[in-house]
Amino acid sequence: SAEIRAAVLADVLPWVQRFAGRIVVIKHGGSTLGPAPGGDARPPEPAAPGAGIPAAPACGDDGVLRDVAMLRALGVRPVVVHGGGKAITAWLDRLGLPARFVDGLRVTDAATLAVVEMVLAGQVNKALVTGLNQAAGRPIAVGLAGCDAGLLVARPKRPGGRDLGYVGEIVRVNTAFLLQLLEAGFVPVIAPVAVGEGGTRYNVNADDAAAAVAGALRAEKLVFLTDVPGVMADVDGDGEPEVVSRLDADTARAFMARGEIRGGMVPKVEAGLRALAAGAGSVHIVDGRRPHALLVELFTSEGVGTMVVAGERGRVA
Amino acid sequence: SAEIRAAVLADVLPWVQRFAGRIVVIKHGGSTLGPAPGGDARPPEPAAPGAGIPAAPACGDDGVLRDVAMLRALGVRPVVVHGGGKAITAWLDRLGLPARFVDGLRVTDAATLAVVEMVLAGQVNKALVTGLNQAAGRPIAVGLAGCDAGLLVARPKRPGGRDLGYVGEIVRVNTAFLLQLLEAGFVPVIAPVAVGEGGTRYNVNADDAAAAVAGALRAEKLVFLTDVPGVMADVDGDGEPEVVSRLDADTARAFMARGEIRGGMVPKVEAGLRALAAGAGSVHIVDGRRPHALLVELFTSEGVGTMVVAGERGRVA
Amino acid sequence: SAEIRAAVLADVLPWVQRFAGRIVVIKHGGSTLGPAPGGDARPPEPAAPGAGIPAAPACGDDGVLRDVAMLRALGVRPVVVHGGGKAITAWLDRLGLPARFVDGLRVTDAATLAVVEMVLAGQVNKALVTGLNQAAGRPIAVGLAGCDAGLLVARPKRPGGRDLGYVGEIVRVNTAFLLQLLEAGFVPVIAPVAVGEGGTRYNVNADDAAAAVAGALRAEKLVFLTDVPGVMADVDGDGEPEVVSRLDADTARAFMARGEIRGGMVPKVEAGLRALAAGAGSVHIVDGRRPHALLVELFTSEGVGTMVVAGERGRVA
Amino acid sequence: SAEIRAAVLADVLPWVQRFAGRIVVIKHGGSTLGPAPGGDARPPEPAAPGAGIPAAPACGDDGVLRDVAMLRALGVRPVVVHGGGKAITAWLDRLGLPARFVDGLRVTDAATLAVVEMVLAGQVNKALVTGLNQAAGRPIAVGLAGCDAGLLVARPKRPGGRDLGYVGEIVRVNTAFLLQLLEAGFVPVIAPVAVGEGGTRYNVNADDAAAAVAGALRAEKLVFLTDVPGVMADVDGDGEPEVVSRLDADTARAFMARGEIRGGMVPKVEAGLRALAAGAGSVHIVDGRRPHALLVELFTSEGVGTMVVAGERGRVA
Amino acid sequence: SAEIRAAVLADVLPWVQRFAGRIVVIKHGGSTLGPAPGGDARPPEPAAPGAGIPAAPACGDDGVLRDVAMLRALGVRPVVVHGGGKAITAWLDRLGLPARFVDGLRVTDAATLAVVEMVLAGQVNKALVTGLNQAAGRPIAVGLAGCDAGLLVARPKRPGGRDLGYVGEIVRVNTAFLLQLLEAGFVPVIAPVAVGEGGTRYNVNADDAAAAVAGALRAEKLVFLTDVPGVMADVDGDGEPEVVSRLDADTARAFMARGEIRGGMVPKVEAGLRALAAGAGSVHIVDGRRPHALLVELFTSEGVGTMVVAGERGRVA
Amino acid sequence: SAEIRAAVLADVLPWVQRFAGRIVVIKHGGSTLGPAPGGDARPPEPAAPGAGIPAAPACGDDGVLRDVAMLRALGVRPVVVHGGGKAITAWLDRLGLPARFVDGLRVTDAATLAVVEMVLAGQVNKALVTGLNQAAGRPIAVGLAGCDAGLLVARPKRPGGRDLGYVGEIVRVNTAFLLQLLEAGFVPVIAPVAVGEGGTRYNVNADDAAAAVAGALRAEKLVFLTDVPGVMADVDGDGEPEVVSRLDADTARAFMARGEIRGGMVPKVEAGLRALAAGAGSVHIVDGRRPHALLVELFTSEGVGTMVVAGERGRVA
Repeated sequence: SAEIRAAVLADVLPWVQRFAGRIVVIKHGGSTLGPAPGGDARPPEPAAPGAGIPAAPACGDDGVLRDVAMLRALGVRPVVVHGGGKAITAWLDRLGLPARFVDGLRVTDAATLAVVEMVLAGQVNKALVTGLNQAAGRPIAVGLAGCDAGLLVARPKRPGGRDLGYVGEIVRVNTAFLLQLLEAGFVPVIAPVAVGEGGTRYNVNADDAAAAVAGALRAEKLVFLTDVPGVMADVDGDGEPEVVSRLDADTARAFMARGEIRGGMVPKVEAGLRALAAGAGSVHIVDGRRPHALLVELFTSEGVGTMVVAGERGRVA
Repeated sequence: SAEIRAAVLADVLPWVQRFAGRIVVIKHGGSTLGPAPGGDARPPEPAAPGAGIPAAPACGDDGVLRDVAMLRALGVRPVVVHGGGKAITAWLDRLGLPARFVDGLRVTDAATLAVVEMVLAGQVNKALVTGLNQAAGRPIAVGLAGCDAGLLVARPKRPGGRDLGYVGEIVRVNTAFLLQLLEAGFVPVIAPVAVGEGGTRYNVNADDAAAAVAGALRAEKLVFLTDVPGVMADVDGDGEPEVVSRLDADTARAFMARGEIRGGMVPKVEAGLRALAAGAGSVHIVDGRRPHALLVELFTSEGVGTMVVAGERGRVA
Repeated sequence: SAEIRAAVLADVLPWVQRFAGRIVVIKHGGSTLGPAPGGDARPPEPAAPGAGIPAAPACGDDGVLRDVAMLRALGVRPVVVHGGGKAITAWLDRLGLPARFVDGLRVTDAATLAVVEMVLAGQVNKALVTGLNQAAGRPIAVGLAGCDAGLLVARPKRPGGRDLGYVGEIVRVNTAFLLQLLEAGFVPVIAPVAVGEGGTRYNVNADDAAAAVAGALRAEKLVFLTDVPGVMADVDGDGEPEVVSRLDADTARAFMARGEIRGGMVPKVEAGLRALAAGAGSVHIVDGRRPHALLVELFTSEGVGTMVVAGERGRVA
Repeated sequence: SAEIRAAVLADVLPWVQRFAGRIVVIKHGGSTLGPAPGGDARPPEPAAPGAGIPAAPACGDDGVLRDVAMLRALGVRPVVVHGGGKAITAWLDRLGLPARFVDGLRVTDAATLAVVEMVLAGQVNKALVTGLNQAAGRPIAVGLAGCDAGLLVARPKRPGGRDLGYVGEIVRVNTAFLLQLLEAGFVPVIAPVAVGEGGTRYNVNADDAAAAVAGALRAEKLVFLTDVPGVMADVDGDGEPEVVSRLDADTARAFMARGEIRGGMVPKVEAGLRALAAGAGSVHIVDGRRPHALLVELFTSEGVGTMVVAGERGRVA
Repeated sequence: SAEIRAAVLADVLPWVQRFAGRIVVIKHGGSTLGPAPGGDARPPEPAAPGAGIPAAPACGDDGVLRDVAMLRALGVRPVVVHGGGKAITAWLDRLGLPARFVDGLRVTDAATLAVVEMVLAGQVNKALVTGLNQAAGRPIAVGLAGCDAGLLVARPKRPGGRDLGYVGEIVRVNTAFLLQLLEAGFVPVIAPVAVGEGGTRYNVNADDAAAAVAGALRAEKLVFLTDVPGVMADVDGDGEPEVVSRLDADTARAFMARGEIRGGMVPKVEAGLRALAAGAGSVHIVDGRRPHALLVELFTSEGVGTMVVAGERGRVA
Repeated sequence: SAEIRAAVLADVLPWVQRFAGRIVVIKHGGSTLGPAPGGDARPPEPAAPGAGIPAAPACGDDGVLRDVAMLRALGVRPVVVHGGGKAITAWLDRLGLPARFVDGLRVTDAATLAVVEMVLAGQVNKALVTGLNQAAGRPIAVGLAGCDAGLLVARPKRPGGRDLGYVGEIVRVNTAFLLQLLEAGFVPVIAPVAVGEGGTRYNVNADDAAAAVAGALRAEKLVFLTDVPGVMADVDGDGEPEVVSRLDADTARAFMARGEIRGGMVPKVEAGLRALAAGAGSVHIVDGRRPHALLVELFTSEGVGTMVVAGERGRVA
């Protein structure tokens, strides 16, 4: 009823005040997007020439974007960094280009880079911007790639000395421009394509980009929206991994060393630790499929997923 | 649960955006205040010299103030105008001064004025300011009387030519100062004591003061918090008055002419019509005892009490 | 004649330039106020029910307020902190509540606090604000109590461990809000009622409040307007105390230790020393009954009363 | 020699002063872009999977961008609106999608729209932004599509009632955001993809988009960079068309009516006339292949191509 | 005594408030200047080569400048326009150049213009600036001639068609620059040398220049400091002219028509009427030799000299 | 041709960006000025009384001023400090006053000071201001002497203890005022007459004044425009001195010690070294007669004259 809703609203007052004006960086996977605008009305027929063209995505009903709009309305200053791996792979498939990964990083030759940049900066980014504007009911989003205002500066990434082509790691973030946009009330939506020496573009892992942005902005929170419930580890020793609700940096490193944290979670946690080291307040690994995960995390006493913080001595639950 | 709360939060997005930055003037009766601070711990004993001294009120648990704090946190710019009739009458009783009313206006001689000013500007105002600061968890309220920065300028009010003593009607509001405070993020809390020529102070009816402030500020809404459910009238002709949920100015005037609206509601509705004429967006007569009446009114689709608007032709329900 | 007046005006140029833009905190006793507005026209008759009600004071002819208005016009930024002991005692008498003091501090139970707050914040403060506006010919004064914008934060004062009830000492001053008002050209007029934990209000000694405000603002001068000519001490050893025109902190402490300074002057000097230690430029103890004492002190070469400074070695005259 | 260069520099003083702070909108065809970054070093082999992938373009050596950077350095405030027809057609070819045109407008079904958006906003836009930043030696460009900050709002375009699919015409430009960027010293680079009701994206003709932006901004100049020398017409009646150096609106309309101006030049001139009607100062149709066409046009007495102005009566040369 | 001085100070409060922030343009004759700096210590010996060189003037003891400094300190915004006829004539004498006047205007050939500009802008202006800074005890004055920031734009003045050489009349004043200086707290000191087409400098009558500046700035007052008590006319018909204390424009014109006002006073009054017509509040013709004439005029109820106002009907005393 | 000119313009982009917003102080000799305005039209006849009056100079065709205007248009922030020795000497001659120099400094008695101030601040300064405004086509120049806003504060200069009369050396520069003017887009043009204690004016060597200003402003460059090609020294030991294109401070000092640099160049180099020590970026000694020497120096790769820098170890060419 209206009164229960009002009561709920009244209850979140302390959290609203707590986060008013704070910067929260949200890593959005880019894979929760719906079908193309008007896609239902005008689907390319199977046998038609456009068959297999990955549709331009729409975002009108993306719950995450509605939550981001609500964060903004409640005075939080959100920054979205997005990926788009699935869309990239679909396009590469359609074009007959193989997708190849080394340690979770996409090996990126010139042709792949061309596709990556187009899909991330031209398709996913614009779909998210449009969707966020729709969710907010007014134009609050500004989409950016690393070249815009020199936002993300990168150098080639050579993990273990291996050449991955146009894969980069971020060495500088133009926070002045981001702060200008935030000050003017906008929500920056950032595609992780960076620029290096001589104007060369680089494909950057989205988790890494989000961590670099959060660290450079000294964000209050960095939230990774994923498709798992959080960091899993067998803390109670019953042989079954549980979601670890809170981790400090040392414990996280220990868990990675012992293999308790492994697989795709390792680079994510490492990115989070870099953000913490650079000055972010806390890092959250959260299941983006859970309804209103962002709002629950920020505006209720019940945290979700795993929170990683810099300073504590091994408090784990 | 946390998720239901988050879902509720997400649902209010359109309203939050609708009222962001808008001015809402709230008439607070001043009679919902709790006992004195430490009043429980140190009550003056019945036989003690302080017996019968009306206690300094506290406001920490005043639901209305918590709602006002929430309005502020949600980006609304509230202004509170308060009364204090019950506290004034209690003090006058204690001092052996009779309370006399003409058409709902307190006849105010010099001694009464001294008490009125002290109680309104010194006791009720400061209790509300303190309570609002407590509710917000940080100091957002600034208490003012009409003399402060020349806020409320009045002349003697002579209804039907009768002399009511130091009873005034407002002729000018210093909106510049109020806007400065609002811009700086404060919530003005205003005691309805105004100043006239030569520095003479005047007791002003709180509804009239709230209407003058709302009109001068061209407020989005003026909300009268009362202890009735709204404007009552027998609209459906079954001999039983119902709450009228929506009234336009012409209909309101017709109802008053026909006696459908009568008694203490008449000056309240008339004050509201003056506010509308001066530029306020809408006027709401709401039961302040209902939990979260302010939040329900602003942030749900279910209005409460009676809404009066300027422009429509007689739409009533 | 006009020319002599102009010549006098021309002569004060150096002082006007010296104090332009500087903050001067003035402790106003609150006891120089005149009769109620319209009090002459409508006096409550002796036998009437209002007999013995202390009249609401007016300030139109208060010379101190005219001097404060002139300070403002000359570019000084004055802040007024006021007491109101006499009015409080008169009200307590009227209400049959005993006034009890320990070491010059009023023991304050809940009933007394209610009266203190009403009289200081509701009566004396508003009378001074109105009077200052009248003296200036335009609304330059804004009256505040400690709750407004969290201006004065206090904790219980327990001198020698004794419980005085709701008597507080100031632990924090919201200078940001005061500076905002000063920047906008207003003269803050402050009633010494502070707020502590949980919203509890505290009665604070006005000298202490003025010293706390002057220290926090690093005021150029703190002027105590009193009803004595200054600090008296038998400096020349003729057995007769003279006004000491200038004192440094060490000498002041020595005089207090030797009993040269005693009685009500001791807490005043101690308050002044705290202000100096916190960063005020100088402290002046001045006879507020002397015509234009403030203007003489600031704008002529002839100081009045006693000036206390932090840094010198025992220069006394 | 250095001195000749300095003399040249000195000579342009009047023009530099003339255009300081003025907005100049430049329609860039998007087809002058060079090869991909590192494209020489790592060309996809003919037989390799990436064969036929249109390379991501680079812009480092694009003379137009260097001129735009120089305009900015000279105090002009340029805005770039770009097309990208060739790149779009290349991608559609690669994907086996037919490119179909009606009256010079690309019929745009959902699959085509997906490609158009990606190529314009993700590839050409980012290449131009990177190239402009390279040319300037510092990050001055910010790439935008119509969704960003609600920049370009469109509705479906139905020329002669024909349904062209997702082809739009611009109905509103968010000039506030553009002016904010210009004020901050940035050069907006705009891809002509607009957003309509419900978040539907629309493909907009780049000339139309440039004209809408120039009109909304009341730009000093709108410069169409083309691959012809200007508007051609047989003015002297020798049977051979010449470049018309100056046209007013009426004459332009007459030439179009008489068929003197025809083919692809007609919609370009019509777009220019709309910009003039909306408040642009003048429109220039210029050969972008000519070295430094922009600089010659603005900073020498020798205009290039055709200048169209609103107000004159038929002055033609 | 100090108290009388303080009382005087207190009495001027209404006037100080009345003129706070208002612009007052003062025409200073430039002839009240004292001897050269160090002139006493190092006078050029009679027989020495420098004999007859008009000494560079000093201004340290110029009462008018001290009054101007006081005006500034009291919050008035003064602008000084000065003449320098005596110094010019002395230099022309020394150089053997004849001083020739037509209707009170100095016929100005190229050689005379060179001397006029040097003496006004180089000697008198700098002496006044230095003197005002000395009087104020800090650098508040900025000296300007008409060329600076395009302050005074003139065309040749041809009264009755006669050619006076480089004598100009002002056609435009750069008020923006003056307001910028006033806003920053400076006192502009203006030499009446203006600039016309092609950079030609013109000698402008100082009264005319002051009137042009006062009119363009819509000054509160324009004060002509002269060496007569004011406008003289035989108002009471006793055959003896008296000082007319107040004149409206129509009466002034009538007096000039009847010859009651004549001689050098005519162009001065005409200049004043132009200033009134352009928007100045009032014009004052005052004896600059009278001590503190400026302060008496502005800050006492006793006006001095003659006040000319635009709007009244013939009130004369 | 237009295209060559555009190409030249395009080539200077790196330099334009390099110096955008930087302060460049230019010492202008004051001796390149042309004849008086209208001087041709109305020359004083030889036998006429004005014979021998040095004409008021004009500057419309001064190439240096056009270059300064171009610097400003290109975003540089120039400050001009000028001399005027030739004009002073001409006036002294005309007045029969001897010009006497000690170590290149003009011995300045009271009569000479009067002439110096008039000529520098009244004639040369105003001619340069007018000329710069003409060159720019709009009023960008503001002429100042040391008294204006307390710009240049000096004390007597006593080289080797000798008394030179009113010759001063600068001890303080009011950079705040200069920066305010620069921020507002103006070009300050400064006459080297400073003010000392008690308002005494001092004649300051123009090179010294320029160095003091450049040092105080931490200018990017200080350019001395002279009438020699630069610093001459026989670097290659062939017995013929060459222009030294680049010198560091140590080398400069060594050259002066060895007598390689001598005569009038010594005080100039010493002034330059003081500017470098105070924070100027580099010092340039350039032939002002060379066309566009300023533009060549700043905007081409070919430096002119001699550049002196602080930090290098003896790199000389």
